[in-house]
Amino acid sequence: MQLEFWFDPASTYAYLTAMRIESLAADAGIGVDWRPFLLGPVFQAQGWNTSPFNLYPAKGRYMVRDIERITAERGLGFRLPDPFPAYSLHAARIATVAGEAGWAGPFVRSMFIAEFDEGRDIADGAVLRNLVAAILEAGHPDAVAAAATSDATKALLRQRTEQAQAYGIFGAPTLRTPDGEMFWGDDRLEAALRWCRR
Amino acid sequence: MQLEFWFDPASTYAYLTAMRIESLAADAGIGVDWRPFLLGPVFQAQGWNTSPFNLYPAKGRYMVRDIERITAERGLGFRLPDPFPAYSLHAARIATVAGEAGWAGPFVRSMFIAEFDEGRDIADGAVLRNLVAAILEAGHPDAVAAAATSDATKALLRQRTEQAQAYGIFGAPTLRTPDGEMFWGDDRLEAALRWCRR
Repeated sequence: MQLEFWFDPASTYAYLTAMRIESLAADAGIGVDWRPFLLGPVFQAQGWNTSPFNLYPAKGRYMVRDIERITAERGLGFRLPDPFPAYSLHAARIATVAGEAGWAGPFVRSMFIAEFDEGRDIADGAVLRNLVAAILEAGHPDAVAAAATSDATKALLRQRTEQAQAYGIFGAPTLRTPDGEMFWGDDRLEAALRWCRR
Repeated sequence: MQLEFWFDPASTYAYLTAMRIESLAADAGIGVDWRPFLLGPVFQAQGWNTSPFNLYPAKGRYMVRDIERITAERGLGFRLPDPFPAYSLHAARIATVAGEAGWAGPFVRSMFIAEFDEGRDIADGAVLRNLVAAILEAGHPDAVAAAATSDATKALLRQRTEQAQAYGIFGAPTLRTPDGEMFWGDDRLEAALRWCRR
């Protein structure tokens, strides 16, 4: 059984989920199907030209404090990227390649740590390249960079984003069970896993 | 020690919190300070003329399913009021009176059950009157109705709504600790109580 984990690499709450989903799912005997997609087109369809955390400053300030408290409780670091949200297209394409090749977990975790703990810019190709190099052996980063910008990967990521909208996904993280139930937010991870085990 | 519970009587997620906050807080040795306010002016300040669940239909559909699952798990009923959100001014004024007089808990719980389980309209004065009559002795409902429309109550509710905005409250339920930490959403109730006990 697999739980789909829909996320945009720029999402603060998806960071929280990425750092714990694989172990919690494994404890429940469930696998993780990593589903990178882009929130930009989803937000645009709702009439937003940026994150709601920027459009609604009180909500944005709350989000930062909420994430600070939760990351402190879980022993994770946090700083808000500048600019926020980070430009996540390149990272999403590499995550798409990683998902197909079976190394999404380590890549996405190291990417979120770089972005939200270390303050590095995931729009920067050199940053992404080093993340890949830390996971795969020498020589692979070039192949990954080529695969990430291939027509097939671009099409797959576009298709995933359209699929997210068709499902009614409006934010990240969204967890989708094999029977099509959707759970939005890191705070719904346990409920999504319970649903899978019903 | 008291945890402030900020809620609008039309809020679906505040229903979830109202049905469990007093017992969970009591278990932690904490009291509940019921803080009815109106989300309407808060939403208007964000450029919204109705609930975000109406403005963003995918989010609204998700909310209904989310609440259905949670209420089922907790043995509560749920149906979405029609119209949604309910017109909550009168209920908020009575809740304000109840808060000053010490019967906010039973009133707010019975009001939420009427609204979200039994499908009754909390804009209807007769519905509210019967809720009050079920809590207080005969003769009191008239006094409560008079107190609810007094200048003092109107001013207190208005002041609470302004205070909510000044605090940066942008949705309900919001839980506010004695040291000013804010937690938004029923799913943050446990975290708010943990924060109080730090």
